[in-house]
Amino acid sequence: MEIALSGFRLFAARLANDAAAVSMSYFRRHPDTGTKPDRSPVTNADTSIEAQMRGTIRARYPHHGILGEEYGELQLQSEYVWVVDPVDGTASFIIGLPLWGTLIALLHEGEPVLGLLDVPALKERWTGTPASCLAQDGTTCRTRQCVSLADATVCATSPDMFAGDERAVFDALTCRAKARRFGGDCYNYAMLASGYLDAVVEAGLEPYDFLSMVPIIESAGGAITDWDGKPLRMESGGRVVAAATSALHREILSFTAGL
Amino acid sequence: MEIALSGFRLFAARLANDAAAVSMSYFRRHPDTGTKPDRSPVTNADTSIEAQMRGTIRARYPHHGILGEEYGELQLQSEYVWVVDPVDGTASFIIGLPLWGTLIALLHEGEPVLGLLDVPALKERWTGTPASCLAQDGTTCRTRQCVSLADATVCATSPDMFAGDERAVFDALTCRAKARRFGGDCYNYAMLASGYLDAVVEAGLEPYDFLSMVPIIESAGGAITDWDGKPLRMESGGRVVAAATSALHREILSFTAGL
Repeated sequence: MEIALSGFRLFAARLANDAAAVSMSYFRRHPDTGTKPDRSPVTNADTSIEAQMRGTIRARYPHHGILGEEYGELQLQSEYVWVVDPVDGTASFIIGLPLWGTLIALLHEGEPVLGLLDVPALKERWTGTPASCLAQDGTTCRTRQCVSLADATVCATSPDMFAGDERAVFDALTCRAKARRFGGDCYNYAMLASGYLDAVVEAGLEPYDFLSMVPIIESAGGAITDWDGKPLRMESGGRVVAAATSALHREILSFTAGL
Repeated sequence: MEIALSGFRLFAARLANDAAAVSMSYFRRHPDTGTKPDRSPVTNADTSIEAQMRGTIRARYPHHGILGEEYGELQLQSEYVWVVDPVDGTASFIIGLPLWGTLIALLHEGEPVLGLLDVPALKERWTGTPASCLAQDGTTCRTRQCVSLADATVCATSPDMFAGDERAVFDALTCRAKARRFGGDCYNYAMLASGYLDAVVEAGLEPYDFLSMVPIIESAGGAITDWDGKPLRMESGGRVVAAATSALHREILSFTAGL
């Protein structure tokens, strides 16, 4: 498995390099004026990148499945399935903030075994496999050893991502945290893997938003599941708890489980 | 005045360069382990930078006043007063996000005539005077020509910055906006000046958080006042409305004024 993953890791890096060339050609540019962005550049970036990724994957691994945000499912019953989000954090992309990313996950028999989070505007990248979580410069990422919510900084991209009772649960648990912080998009998970923040609790996500985070967070020493503590898979709902340690993860689940 | 401002602009750039050398030596580092951050690095960065800035200002302009976050007021009755925030966005700084900045304003007879927003982790800088708003690479910044809330993306650093009825006002006006987005800190104002987002509406700020934004936003073509439409000065409350155009600014004031 490790030998195969090594090849897949290089392939994922190639996908990310190709994607970054396209996304950066749209970032902070408007197709008409050349300067001002609106919704269409990110849509164009999304569709162009995903079409390119799907072509590259099908040429190299014709028997693998693919799930992408823009073009849907292909052969999801395959042993290996690639799950891609060309531009995660489109709201940030549109307003010029550099914290959006390209997300790539590889599932083996449904389990995420490779995750790549690329942040082209900052030239930063995180790659997780069961063996390790590596940053762009090859250093190994480790989560912070925060074991208690009272010492934790908890992040979510927006309070508006919570529906119904989810918001009350998030408020209740962040009331017990040291601090809470909104914004950040996929970059929050990278900062969690690298030991800068302690937990990300989100809802309303799609499989292509969270599957790549599983190998990244777990191999960095953290824990990541749905709000009930179940492993994140293709069919998981969009609720995610990611924490720096198992102890902190358990404490957060005591608020989120059973909703 | 313009000749004097040219000298002040160079001086402010020197202050920012010196500050960046210090702040970056603390960012994403812990004084003990060398790797993991907590509250103390940002506190150390804040105090070290402000002490350095105050020394540099006093040596060059001994008759000028100074207001800083860490060391308070000095000679605020002076014709010229420097207002500095060594690290704006300390919450971002602590969790590793690169969107924090160093803010420098120069007031002449109480009016902000020079504003500098430096983002060391991204090597980006905005400098505003009545004549122009310039980006790091010398290009002139212009706000987006958004004249209606229905077309506007409105930002605030956090919903938690609003107290009492402020939150209801923010919710009411962002309900009418195209989109709203949390996070971003001082970087939101830079993205407003550069034409990527349309408005920033915040509360609970201090003079050193907002005075530098006045020359930046106004010279880029936008409008920035308190929630009642009054000019932002040292004695303003902490409520700020910054918008890409006067028309959009007026529409937002129709929600915020009189609270």
